[in-house]
Amino acid sequence: MIIIGELINASREAIKAAIESQDSAAIQKVAQDQARAGADYMDVNAGIFLDQEPEYLKWLVRMVQTATDKPCAIDSPNPAVIEAAVMVHQGTPLINSISLEKERFDRLLPFVAGTDFKVIALCMSDEGMPQTVDDRLRIADKLVGGLLNNNVKVENIFVDPLVQPLSVNNSYGLAFIDAMEKILDNYPGIHTACGVSNISYGLPARKYLNHIFMTMAISKGLDGAIINPLDRRLMAGIIAAEALAGRDDFCMNYLKAFREGLFEG
Amino acid sequence: MIIIGELINASREAIKAAIESQDSAAIQKVAQDQARAGADYMDVNAGIFLDQEPEYLKWLVRMVQTATDKPCAIDSPNPAVIEAAVMVHQGTPLINSISLEKERFDRLLPFVAGTDFKVIALCMSDEGMPQTVDDRLRIADKLVGGLLNNNVKVENIFVDPLVQPLSVNNSYGLAFIDAMEKILDNYPGIHTACGVSNISYGLPARKYLNHIFMTMAISKGLDGAIINPLDRRLMAGIIAAEALAGRDDFCMNYLKAFREGLFEG
Repeated sequence: MIIIGELINASREAIKAAIESQDSAAIQKVAQDQARAGADYMDVNAGIFLDQEPEYLKWLVRMVQTATDKPCAIDSPNPAVIEAAVMVHQGTPLINSISLEKERFDRLLPFVAGTDFKVIALCMSDEGMPQTVDDRLRIADKLVGGLLNNNVKVENIFVDPLVQPLSVNNSYGLAFIDAMEKILDNYPGIHTACGVSNISYGLPARKYLNHIFMTMAISKGLDGAIINPLDRRLMAGIIAAEALAGRDDFCMNYLKAFREGLFEG
Repeated sequence: MIIIGELINASREAIKAAIESQDSAAIQKVAQDQARAGADYMDVNAGIFLDQEPEYLKWLVRMVQTATDKPCAIDSPNPAVIEAAVMVHQGTPLINSISLEKERFDRLLPFVAGTDFKVIALCMSDEGMPQTVDDRLRIADKLVGGLLNNNVKVENIFVDPLVQPLSVNNSYGLAFIDAMEKILDNYPGIHTACGVSNISYGLPARKYLNHIFMTMAISKGLDGAIINPLDRRLMAGIIAAEALAGRDDFCMNYLKAFREGLFEG
Protein backbone atom coordinates (compact mmCIF):
# COMPACT_ATOMS: atom_id res chain seq x y z
CA MET A 1 0.00 0.00 0.00
CA ILE A 2 1.27 3.45 -0.94
CA ILE A 3 0.42 5.85 1.88
CA ILE A 4 0.16 9.57 1.13
CA GLY A 5 0.22 11.45 4.44
CA GLU A 6 -2.46 14.16 4.38
CA LEU A 7 -1.61 16.21 7.45
CA ILE A 8 0.47 19.06 5.95
CA ASN A 9 -2.54 20.91 4.61
CA ALA A 10 -3.17 24.57 5.33
CA SER A 11 -6.89 23.93 5.70
CA ARG A 12 -5.88 22.49 9.10
CA GLU A 13 -5.61 25.27 11.69
CA ALA A 14 -2.25 24.19 13.16
CA ILE A 15 -0.62 23.98 9.73
CA LYS A 16 -2.03 27.34 8.66
CA ALA A 17 -0.59 28.95 11.79
CA ALA A 18 2.80 27.26 11.30
CA ILE A 19 2.96 28.50 7.71
CA GLU A 20 2.02 32.05 8.66
CA SER A 21 4.68 32.19 11.36
CA GLN A 22 7.14 30.24 9.16
CA ASP A 23 7.57 27.78 12.02
CA SER A 24 9.93 25.27 10.40
CA ALA A 25 10.10 23.00 13.44
CA ALA A 26 6.32 22.54 13.54
CA ILE A 27 6.09 21.47 9.90
CA GLN A 28 9.18 19.29 10.17
CA LYS A 29 7.75 17.49 13.19
CA VAL A 30 4.50 16.65 11.36
CA ALA A 31 6.56 15.41 8.41
CA GLN A 32 8.75 13.22 10.63
CA ASP A 33 5.76 11.85 12.55
CA GLN A 34 4.04 10.86 9.31
CA ALA A 35 7.20 9.30 7.89
CA ARG A 36 7.71 7.25 11.04
CA ALA A 37 4.07 6.12 10.93
CA GLY A 38 4.52 4.77 7.42
CA ALA A 39 3.84 7.59 4.92
CA ASP A 40 5.51 7.01 1.53
CA TYR A 41 4.64 10.48 0.22
CA MET A 42 4.01 13.71 2.07
CA ASP A 43 1.08 15.68 0.72
CA VAL A 44 1.69 19.45 0.84
CA ASN A 45 -1.17 21.89 0.31
CA ALA A 46 -1.23 25.66 0.83
CA GLY A 47 -4.36 26.28 -1.22
CA ILE A 48 -6.10 28.57 1.25
CA PHE A 49 -3.46 31.27 0.81
CA LEU A 50 -4.31 32.17 -2.81
CA ASP A 51 -1.69 34.85 -3.74
CA GLN A 52 0.95 33.44 -1.42
CA GLU A 53 0.20 29.84 -2.35
CA PRO A 54 3.26 29.32 -4.61
CA GLU A 55 5.75 30.73 -2.09
CA TYR A 56 4.25 28.85 0.82
CA LEU A 57 4.01 25.58 -1.12
CA LYS A 58 7.67 25.81 -2.10
CA TRP A 59 8.53 26.45 1.55
CA LEU A 60 6.53 23.38 2.62
CA VAL A 61 8.38 21.22 0.09
CA ARG A 62 11.72 22.43 1.45
CA MET A 63 10.64 21.86 5.06
CA VAL A 64 9.49 18.30 4.34
CA GLN A 65 12.65 17.47 2.43
CA THR A 66 15.03 18.83 5.05
CA ALA A 67 13.22 16.80 7.72
CA THR A 68 12.66 13.48 5.93
CA ASP A 69 13.79 11.53 2.88
CA LYS A 70 10.23 11.23 1.58
CA PRO A 71 9.04 12.75 -1.70
CA CYS A 72 6.10 15.16 -1.72
CA ALA A 73 2.66 14.94 -3.23
CA ILE A 74 2.36 18.45 -4.67
CA ASP A 75 -1.28 19.28 -4.03
CA SER A 76 -2.97 22.22 -5.74
CA PRO A 77 -5.84 22.79 -8.15
CA ASN A 78 -3.62 25.41 -9.83
CA PRO A 79 -1.19 24.02 -12.43
CA ALA A 80 1.13 27.04 -12.20
CA VAL A 81 1.51 26.50 -8.47
CA ILE A 82 2.26 22.81 -8.98
CA GLU A 83 4.95 23.71 -11.52
CA ALA A 84 6.57 26.21 -9.16
CA ALA A 85 6.69 23.73 -6.30
CA VAL A 86 8.04 20.90 -8.46
CA MET A 87 10.98 23.15 -9.40
CA VAL A 88 12.27 23.16 -5.80
CA HIS A 89 11.50 19.48 -5.20
CA GLN A 90 14.39 16.98 -4.93
CA GLY A 91 13.79 13.57 -6.49
CA THR A 92 10.55 12.39 -8.06
CA PRO A 93 7.38 14.17 -6.93
CA LEU A 94 3.79 12.97 -7.05
CA ILE A 95 1.56 15.45 -8.90
CA ASN A 96 -1.77 15.84 -7.07
CA SER A 97 -3.52 16.10 -9.45
CA ILE A 98 -4.30 16.17 -13.11
CA SER A 99 -7.99 15.98 -14.08
CA LEU A 100 -10.05 16.28 -17.24
CA GLU A 101 -10.93 19.89 -16.43
CA LYS A 102 -9.69 21.60 -19.58
CA GLU A 103 -7.45 24.23 -18.05
CA ARG A 104 -5.76 21.79 -15.71
CA PHE A 105 -5.45 19.06 -18.31
CA ASP A 106 -4.07 21.24 -21.11
CA ARG A 107 -1.38 22.77 -18.93
CA LEU A 108 -0.31 19.78 -16.81
CA LEU A 109 -0.22 17.20 -19.59
CA PRO A 110 2.77 18.77 -21.40
CA PHE A 111 4.40 19.43 -18.01
CA VAL A 112 4.40 15.75 -17.01
CA ALA A 113 4.92 14.40 -20.56
CA GLY A 114 8.01 12.20 -20.81
CA THR A 115 8.94 12.66 -17.13
CA ASP A 116 9.17 10.07 -14.38
CA PHE A 117 6.81 12.05 -12.19
CA LYS A 118 4.08 10.11 -10.43
CA VAL A 119 0.66 11.52 -11.29
CA ILE A 120 -2.72 11.29 -9.61
CA ALA A 121 -5.40 11.29 -12.32
CA LEU A 122 -8.60 12.52 -10.70
CA CYS A 123 -11.84 11.46 -12.42
CA MET A 124 -13.34 14.94 -12.66
CA SER A 125 -14.20 16.97 -15.76
CA ASP A 126 -15.74 20.30 -16.65
CA GLU A 127 -19.11 18.56 -16.68
CA GLY A 128 -18.75 18.17 -12.92
CA MET A 129 -18.56 15.16 -10.64
CA PRO A 130 -19.09 11.69 -12.10
CA GLN A 131 -22.19 9.86 -10.84
CA THR A 132 -22.05 6.37 -12.30
CA VAL A 133 -19.44 3.72 -13.00
CA ASP A 134 -19.61 4.63 -16.70
CA ASP A 135 -19.06 8.35 -15.99
CA ARG A 136 -15.90 7.44 -14.11
CA LEU A 137 -14.67 5.07 -16.80
CA ARG A 138 -15.19 7.60 -19.59
CA ILE A 139 -13.11 10.21 -17.74
CA ALA A 140 -10.47 7.66 -16.70
CA ASP A 141 -10.04 6.50 -20.31
CA LYS A 142 -9.40 10.03 -21.54
CA LEU A 143 -7.03 10.83 -18.68
CA VAL A 144 -5.03 7.63 -18.81
CA GLY A 145 -5.02 7.62 -22.62
CA GLY A 146 -3.67 11.19 -22.65
CA LEU A 147 -0.94 10.37 -20.14
CA LEU A 148 0.13 7.16 -21.90
CA ASN A 149 0.22 8.92 -25.28
CA ASN A 150 2.51 11.49 -23.71
CA ASN A 151 5.01 8.94 -22.46
CA VAL A 152 3.96 8.76 -18.86
CA LYS A 153 4.50 5.15 -17.80
CA VAL A 154 1.40 3.25 -16.71
CA GLU A 155 3.06 2.39 -13.37
CA ASN A 156 3.46 6.09 -12.59
CA ILE A 157 -0.28 6.78 -12.88
CA PHE A 158 -2.59 6.71 -9.85
CA VAL A 159 -6.23 6.91 -10.93
CA ASP A 160 -8.62 8.35 -8.34
CA PRO A 161 -12.17 7.34 -9.39
CA LEU A 162 -13.54 9.96 -6.95
CA VAL A 163 -15.38 9.00 -3.80
CA GLN A 164 -18.76 10.67 -3.41
CA PRO A 165 -21.07 10.83 -0.35
CA LEU A 166 -23.23 7.83 0.43
CA SER A 167 -25.72 10.20 2.04
CA VAL A 168 -26.46 11.68 -1.39
CA ASN A 169 -26.91 8.36 -3.21
CA ASN A 170 -26.57 4.90 -1.74
CA SER A 171 -24.96 3.59 -4.94
CA TYR A 172 -21.89 5.86 -4.63
CA GLY A 173 -19.84 3.41 -2.55
CA LEU A 174 -20.17 0.58 -5.05
CA ALA A 175 -19.86 2.96 -8.03
CA PHE A 176 -16.40 3.91 -6.80
CA ILE A 177 -15.32 0.33 -6.14
CA ASP A 178 -16.72 -1.09 -9.38
CA ALA A 179 -15.10 1.68 -11.43
CA MET A 180 -11.81 1.05 -9.67
CA GLU A 181 -11.94 -2.68 -10.44
CA LYS A 182 -12.60 -2.02 -14.13
CA ILE A 183 -9.78 0.55 -14.38
CA LEU A 184 -7.36 -1.96 -12.82
CA ASP A 185 -8.53 -4.57 -15.36
CA ASN A 186 -8.25 -2.19 -18.31
CA TYR A 187 -4.72 -0.93 -17.56
CA PRO A 188 -2.51 -3.65 -16.07
CA GLY A 189 0.17 -2.16 -13.84
CA ILE A 190 -1.75 1.03 -13.08
CA HIS A 191 -2.27 2.21 -9.52
CA THR A 192 -5.34 3.65 -7.81
CA ALA A 193 -5.51 6.14 -4.98
CA CYS A 194 -8.12 8.16 -3.14
CA GLY A 195 -9.10 9.97 -0.02
CA VAL A 196 -12.01 8.11 1.55
CA SER A 197 -13.51 10.64 3.96
CA ASN A 198 -15.96 11.97 1.38
CA ILE A 199 -17.91 8.71 1.53
CA SER A 200 -19.25 9.52 5.01
CA TYR A 201 -20.12 13.19 4.43
CA GLY A 202 -23.45 13.98 6.11
CA LEU A 203 -23.52 10.77 8.16
CA PRO A 204 -22.62 10.08 11.80
CA ALA A 205 -19.73 7.88 13.02
CA ARG A 206 -17.73 9.06 10.02
CA LYS A 207 -14.34 7.65 11.03
CA TYR A 208 -15.80 4.21 11.35
CA LEU A 209 -17.55 4.35 7.98
CA ASN A 210 -14.36 5.66 6.32
CA HIS A 211 -12.42 2.81 7.87
CA ILE A 212 -14.78 0.10 6.60
CA PHE A 213 -14.96 1.66 3.14
CA MET A 214 -11.16 1.78 2.89
CA THR A 215 -10.87 -1.93 3.71
CA MET A 216 -13.56 -2.79 1.15
CA ALA A 217 -11.73 -0.85 -1.56
CA ILE A 218 -8.42 -2.53 -0.66
CA SER A 219 -10.04 -5.94 -1.03
CA LYS A 220 -10.79 -5.05 -4.67
CA GLY A 221 -7.37 -3.63 -5.50
CA LEU A 222 -6.97 -0.10 -4.07
CA ASP A 223 -3.23 0.33 -3.54
CA GLY A 224 -2.86 4.02 -2.70
CA ALA A 225 -4.53 6.11 -0.01
CA ILE A 226 -4.43 9.75 1.01
CA ILE A 227 -4.90 9.46 4.77
CA ASN A 228 -3.72 10.42 8.22
CA PRO A 229 -1.03 7.82 8.93
CA LEU A 230 -1.06 8.76 12.63
CA ASP A 231 -4.55 7.19 12.87
CA ARG A 232 -3.37 3.83 14.18
CA ARG A 233 -6.78 2.21 13.86
CA LEU A 234 -6.94 3.12 10.17
CA MET A 235 -3.38 1.91 9.55
CA ALA A 236 -4.27 -1.36 11.32
CA GLY A 237 -7.29 -1.69 9.02
CA ILE A 238 -5.15 -1.19 5.94
CA ILE A 239 -2.64 -3.83 7.04
CA ALA A 240 -5.38 -6.33 7.91
CA ALA A 241 -7.19 -5.67 4.64
CA GLU A 242 -4.03 -6.18 2.60
CA ALA A 243 -3.42 -9.52 4.33
CA LEU A 244 -7.02 -10.60 3.69
CA ALA A 245 -6.68 -9.52 0.05
CA GLY A 246 -3.70 -11.85 -0.40
CA ARG A 247 -1.14 -9.03 -0.65
CA ASP A 248 0.95 -9.88 2.42
CA ASP A 249 3.13 -12.97 2.00
CA PHE A 250 2.85 -15.25 5.02
CA CYS A 251 1.02 -12.37 6.75
CA MET A 252 4.45 -10.94 7.64
CA ASN A 253 3.36 -7.29 7.75
CA TYR A 254 0.26 -8.21 9.70
CA LEU A 255 2.28 -10.13 12.30
CA LYS A 256 4.87 -7.32 12.53
CA ALA A 257 2.12 -4.73 13.06
CA PHE A 258 0.59 -6.94 15.74
CA ARG A 259 3.92 -7.22 17.57
CA GLU A 260 4.23 -3.44 17.40
CA GLY A 261 0.87 -3.11 19.16
CA LEU A 262 -1.12 -1.69 16.25
CA PHE A 263 -4.13 -3.88 16.99
CA GLU A 264 -4.36 -3.03 20.68
CA GLY A 265 -7.35 -1.17 22.08
CA MET B 1 -28.53 -9.40 6.09
CA ILE B 2 -29.75 -12.71 7.47
CA ILE B 3 -28.17 -13.28 10.86
CA ILE B 4 -27.83 -16.82 12.18
CA GLY B 5 -27.05 -16.62 15.91
CA GLU B 6 -24.27 -19.08 16.72
CA LEU B 7 -24.29 -19.11 20.53
CA ILE B 8 -26.44 -22.19 21.27
CA ASN B 9 -23.67 -24.64 20.52
CA ALA B 10 -22.65 -27.38 22.94
CA SER B 11 -18.99 -26.84 22.11
CA ARG B 12 -19.34 -23.76 24.32
CA GLU B 13 -18.87 -24.69 27.99
CA ALA B 14 -21.90 -22.79 29.34
CA ILE B 15 -24.23 -24.36 26.78
CA LYS B 16 -22.84 -27.85 27.39
CA ALA B 17 -23.46 -27.43 31.13
CA ALA B 18 -26.99 -26.08 30.55
CA ILE B 19 -27.82 -29.04 28.32
CA GLU B 20 -26.45 -31.58 30.79
CA SER B 21 -28.46 -30.10 33.65
CA GLN B 22 -31.46 -29.50 31.34
CA ASP B 23 -31.45 -25.87 32.44
CA SER B 24 -34.28 -24.51 30.28
CA ALA B 25 -33.96 -20.95 31.57
CA ALA B 26 -30.29 -20.70 30.59
CA ILE B 27 -30.93 -21.78 27.00
CA GLN B 28 -34.03 -19.63 26.71
CA LYS B 29 -32.13 -16.57 27.91
CA VAL B 30 -29.41 -17.03 25.27
CA ALA B 31 -32.12 -17.47 22.63
CA GLN B 32 -33.94 -14.30 23.74
CA ASP B 33 -30.71 -12.28 23.94
CA GLN B 34 -29.78 -13.28 20.39
CA ALA B 35 -33.29 -12.55 19.07
CA ARG B 36 -33.25 -9.10 20.66
CA ALA B 37 -29.80 -8.42 19.18
CA GLY B 38 -31.08 -9.15 15.68
CA ALA B 39 -30.75 -12.89 15.01
CA ASP B 40 -33.12 -14.14 12.30
CA TYR B 41 -32.32 -17.82 12.89
CA MET B 42 -31.10 -19.58 16.00
CA ASP B 43 -28.38 -22.14 15.31
CA VAL B 44 -28.69 -25.20 17.57
CA ASN B 45 -25.85 -27.71 17.83
CA ALA B 46 -25.40 -30.59 20.26
CA GLY B 47 -22.73 -32.39 18.26
CA ILE B 48 -20.34 -33.08 21.13
CA PHE B 49 -22.81 -35.45 22.79
CA LEU B 50 -22.69 -38.21 20.14
CA ASP B 51 -25.25 -40.81 21.37
CA GLN B 52 -27.43 -38.24 23.08
CA GLU B 53 -27.15 -35.73 20.22
CA PRO B 54 -30.66 -36.36 18.75
CA GLU B 55 -32.45 -36.07 22.10
CA TYR B 56 -30.51 -33.00 23.14
CA LEU B 57 -30.93 -31.29 19.77
CA LYS B 58 -34.70 -31.81 19.88
CA TRP B 59 -34.70 -30.35 23.37
CA LEU B 60 -32.74 -27.30 22.18
CA VAL B 61 -35.24 -26.73 19.35
CA ARG B 62 -38.12 -26.83 21.83
CA MET B 63 -36.35 -24.49 24.23
CA VAL B 64 -35.66 -21.92 21.49
CA GLN B 65 -39.18 -22.08 20.17
CA THR B 66 -40.86 -21.69 23.54
CA ALA B 67 -38.67 -18.64 24.25
CA THR B 68 -38.74 -16.84 20.88
CA ASP B 69 -40.62 -16.77 17.59
CA LYS B 70 -37.42 -17.42 15.61
CA PRO B 71 -36.86 -20.52 13.49
CA CYS B 72 -33.83 -22.72 14.13
CA ALA B 73 -30.79 -23.54 12.03
CA ILE B 74 -30.58 -27.29 12.67
CA ASP B 75 -26.84 -27.85 12.86
CA SER B 76 -25.35 -31.32 12.67
CA PRO B 77 -23.02 -33.28 10.40
CA ASN B 78 -25.34 -36.28 10.91
CA PRO B 79 -28.36 -36.34 8.56
CA ALA B 80 -30.35 -38.65 10.86
CA VAL B 81 -29.97 -36.17 13.71
CA ILE B 82 -31.09 -33.30 11.48
CA GLU B 83 -34.18 -35.26 10.46
CA ALA B 84 -35.07 -36.01 14.07
CA ALA B 85 -34.75 -32.36 15.11
CA VAL B 86 -36.75 -31.08 12.14
CA MET B 87 -39.63 -33.33 13.20
CA VAL B 88 -40.15 -31.34 16.41
CA HIS B 89 -39.52 -27.93 14.76
CA GLN B 90 -42.45 -25.53 14.27
CA GLY B 91 -42.44 -23.52 11.03
CA THR B 92 -39.70 -23.57 8.42
CA PRO B 93 -36.26 -24.64 9.61
CA LEU B 94 -32.86 -23.89 8.10
CA ILE B 95 -30.92 -27.10 7.45
CA ASN B 96 -27.25 -26.62 8.44
CA SER B 97 -26.03 -28.20 6.25
CA ILE B 98 -26.04 -30.31 3.15
CA SER B 99 -22.66 -30.88 1.45
CA LEU B 100 -21.30 -32.94 -1.41
CA GLU B 101 -20.02 -35.60 1.01
CA LYS B 102 -21.77 -38.65 -0.40
CA GLU B 103 -23.44 -39.93 2.76
CA ARG B 104 -24.75 -36.49 3.70
CA PHE B 105 -25.82 -35.58 0.18
CA ASP B 106 -27.59 -38.86 -0.61
CA ARG B 107 -29.65 -38.80 2.57
CA LEU B 108 -30.44 -35.08 2.92
CA LEU B 109 -31.30 -34.42 -0.72
CA PRO B 110 -34.50 -36.54 -0.71
CA PHE B 111 -35.31 -35.17 2.75
CA VAL B 112 -35.35 -31.54 1.59
CA ALA B 113 -36.70 -32.28 -1.93
CA GLY B 114 -39.92 -30.40 -2.63
CA THR B 115 -40.01 -28.74 0.80
CA ASP B 116 -39.84 -25.06 1.70
CA PHE B 117 -36.93 -25.70 4.06
CA LYS B 118 -34.05 -23.26 3.86
CA VAL B 119 -30.81 -25.13 3.19
CA ILE B 120 -27.17 -24.21 3.73
CA ALA B 121 -25.13 -25.83 0.93
CA LEU B 122 -21.59 -26.19 2.24
CA CYS B 123 -18.88 -26.42 -0.42
CA MET B 124 -17.22 -29.53 0.92
CA SER B 125 -16.87 -32.96 -0.69
CA ASP B 126 -15.35 -36.36 0.04
CA GLU B 127 -12.17 -35.11 -1.63
CA GLY B 128 -11.77 -32.74 1.32
CA MET B 129 -11.67 -28.98 1.58
CA PRO B 130 -11.70 -26.86 -1.58
CA GLN B 131 -8.54 -24.83 -2.19
CA THR B 132 -9.22 -22.66 -5.22
CA VAL B 133 -12.09 -20.65 -6.65
CA ASP B 134 -12.66 -23.41 -9.22
CA ASP B 135 -12.79 -26.12 -6.55
CA ARG B 136 -15.53 -24.16 -4.82
CA LEU B 137 -17.46 -23.55 -8.03
CA ARG B 138 -17.35 -27.21 -9.05
CA ILE B 139 -18.82 -28.27 -5.71
CA ALA B 140 -21.36 -25.43 -5.67
CA ASP B 141 -22.61 -26.35 -9.15
CA LYS B 142 -23.25 -29.95 -8.14
CA LEU B 143 -24.91 -28.97 -4.85
CA VAL B 144 -27.11 -26.21 -6.26
CA GLY B 145 -27.93 -28.26 -9.36
CA GLY B 146 -28.99 -31.20 -7.19
CA LEU B 147 -31.18 -29.01 -5.00
CA LEU B 148 -32.83 -27.20 -7.93
CA ASN B 149 -33.50 -30.49 -9.72
CA ASN B 150 -35.22 -31.70 -6.58
CA ASN B 151 -37.56 -28.72 -6.38
CA VAL B 152 -35.81 -26.68 -3.76
CA LYS B 153 -36.35 -23.04 -4.72
CA VAL B 154 -33.24 -21.03 -5.49
CA GLU B 155 -34.19 -18.41 -2.90
CA ASN B 156 -34.18 -21.07 -0.19
CA ILE B 157 -30.55 -22.03 -0.84
CA PHE B 158 -27.66 -20.47 1.10
CA VAL B 159 -24.32 -21.45 -0.45
CA ASP B 160 -21.36 -21.41 1.93
CA PRO B 161 -18.18 -21.32 -0.22
CA LEU B 162 -16.16 -22.33 2.88
CA VAL B 163 -13.78 -19.93 4.55
CA GLN B 164 -10.29 -21.33 5.06
CA PRO B 165 -7.39 -19.97 7.16
CA LEU B 166 -5.31 -17.16 5.72
CA SER B 167 -2.39 -18.44 7.80
CA VAL B 168 -2.29 -21.57 5.63
CA ASN B 169 -2.45 -19.78 2.27
CA ASN B 170 -2.69 -16.05 1.67
CA SER B 171 -5.02 -16.59 -1.30
CA TYR B 172 -7.81 -18.13 0.83
CA GLY B 173 -9.53 -14.82 1.62
CA LEU B 174 -9.93 -13.80 -2.01
CA ALA B 175 -10.68 -17.38 -3.10
CA PHE B 176 -13.74 -17.32 -0.85
CA ILE B 177 -14.89 -13.88 -1.99
CA ASP B 178 -14.29 -14.51 -5.69
CA ALA B 179 -16.13 -17.85 -5.55
CA MET B 180 -19.01 -16.17 -3.74
CA GLU B 181 -19.29 -13.46 -6.41
CA LYS B 182 -19.37 -16.03 -9.21
CA ILE B 183 -22.01 -18.15 -7.44
CA LEU B 184 -24.20 -15.06 -7.00
CA ASP B 185 -23.77 -14.30 -10.72
CA ASN B 186 -24.50 -17.88 -11.79
CA TYR B 187 -27.69 -18.32 -9.75
CA PRO B 188 -29.72 -15.10 -9.52
CA GLY B 189 -31.76 -14.98 -6.32
CA ILE B 190 -29.53 -17.40 -4.40
CA HIS B 191 -28.20 -16.50 -0.95
CA THR B 192 -24.76 -16.99 0.55
CA ALA B 193 -23.81 -17.57 4.16
CA CYS B 194 -20.77 -18.44 6.18
CA GLY B 195 -19.05 -18.34 9.50
CA VAL B 196 -16.01 -16.10 9.18
CA SER B 197 -13.88 -17.03 12.17
CA ASN B 198 -11.93 -19.69 10.26
CA ILE B 199 -10.22 -16.95 8.22
CA SER B 200 -8.13 -15.87 11.22
CA TYR B 201 -7.16 -19.32 12.53
CA GLY B 202 -3.50 -19.29 13.60
CA LEU B 203 -3.21 -15.49 13.57
CA PRO B 204 -3.37 -12.90 16.37
CA ALA B 205 -6.07 -10.20 16.79
CA ARG B 206 -8.58 -12.69 15.39
CA LYS B 207 -11.75 -10.74 16.17
CA TYR B 208 -10.49 -7.75 14.27
CA LEU B 209 -9.49 -9.81 11.23
CA ASN B 210 -12.87 -11.59 11.26
CA HIS B 211 -14.63 -8.25 11.40
CA ILE B 212 -12.75 -6.80 8.40
CA PHE B 213 -13.21 -9.99 6.39
CA MET B 214 -16.95 -9.97 7.03
CA THR B 215 -17.30 -6.40 5.76
CA MET B 216 -15.26 -7.23 2.64
CA ALA B 217 -17.51 -10.20 1.88
CA ILE B 218 -20.65 -8.10 2.41
CA SER B 219 -19.37 -5.55 -0.07
CA LYS B 220 -19.34 -8.28 -2.71
CA GLY B 221 -22.76 -9.72 -1.91
CA LEU B 222 -22.62 -11.89 1.22
CA ASP B 223 -26.14 -11.76 2.69
CA GLY B 224 -26.06 -14.38 5.45
CA ALA B 225 -23.72 -14.81 8.40
CA ILE B 226 -23.38 -17.31 11.21
CA ILE B 227 -22.13 -15.07 14.01
CA ASN B 228 -22.49 -13.95 17.60
CA PRO B 229 -25.15 -11.22 17.36
CA LEU B 230 -24.25 -10.03 20.88
CA ASP B 231 -20.92 -8.78 19.49
CA ARG B 232 -22.02 -5.18 19.03
CA ARG B 233 -18.88 -4.19 17.15
CA LEU B 234 -19.44 -6.94 14.61
CA MET B 235 -23.11 -6.05 14.20
CA ALA B 236 -22.09 -2.40 13.69
CA GLY B 237 -19.65 -3.54 11.00
CA ILE B 238 -22.37 -5.51 9.22
CA ILE B 239 -24.74 -2.54 9.22
CA ALA B 240 -22.04 -0.12 8.01
CA ALA B 241 -20.92 -2.55 5.31
CA GLU B 242 -24.47 -3.02 4.04
CA ALA B 243 -24.90 0.76 3.78
CA LEU B 244 -21.59 1.11 1.91
CA ALA B 245 -22.61 -1.74 -0.39
CA GLY B 246 -25.77 0.15 -1.39
CA ARG B 247 -28.13 -2.20 0.45
CA ASP B 248 -29.58 0.29 2.95
CA ASP B 249 -32.00 2.80 1.39
CA PHE B 250 -31.24 6.33 2.60
CA CYS B 251 -28.89 4.72 5.17
CA MET B 252 -31.97 4.21 7.37
CA ASN B 253 -30.65 1.12 9.19
CA TYR B 254 -27.27 2.77 9.63
CA LEU B 255 -28.82 5.90 11.16
CA LYS B 256 -31.11 3.81 13.39
CA ALA B 257 -28.15 1.74 14.63
CA PHE B 258 -26.23 4.95 15.31
CA ARG B 259 -29.13 6.37 17.36
CA GLU B 260 -29.22 3.10 19.33
CA GLY B 261 -25.55 3.59 20.24
CA LEU B 262 -24.15 0.69 18.21
CA PHE B 263 -21.19 2.77 16.99
CA GLU B 264 -20.13 4.00 20.42
CA GLY B 265 -16.78 3.00 21.92
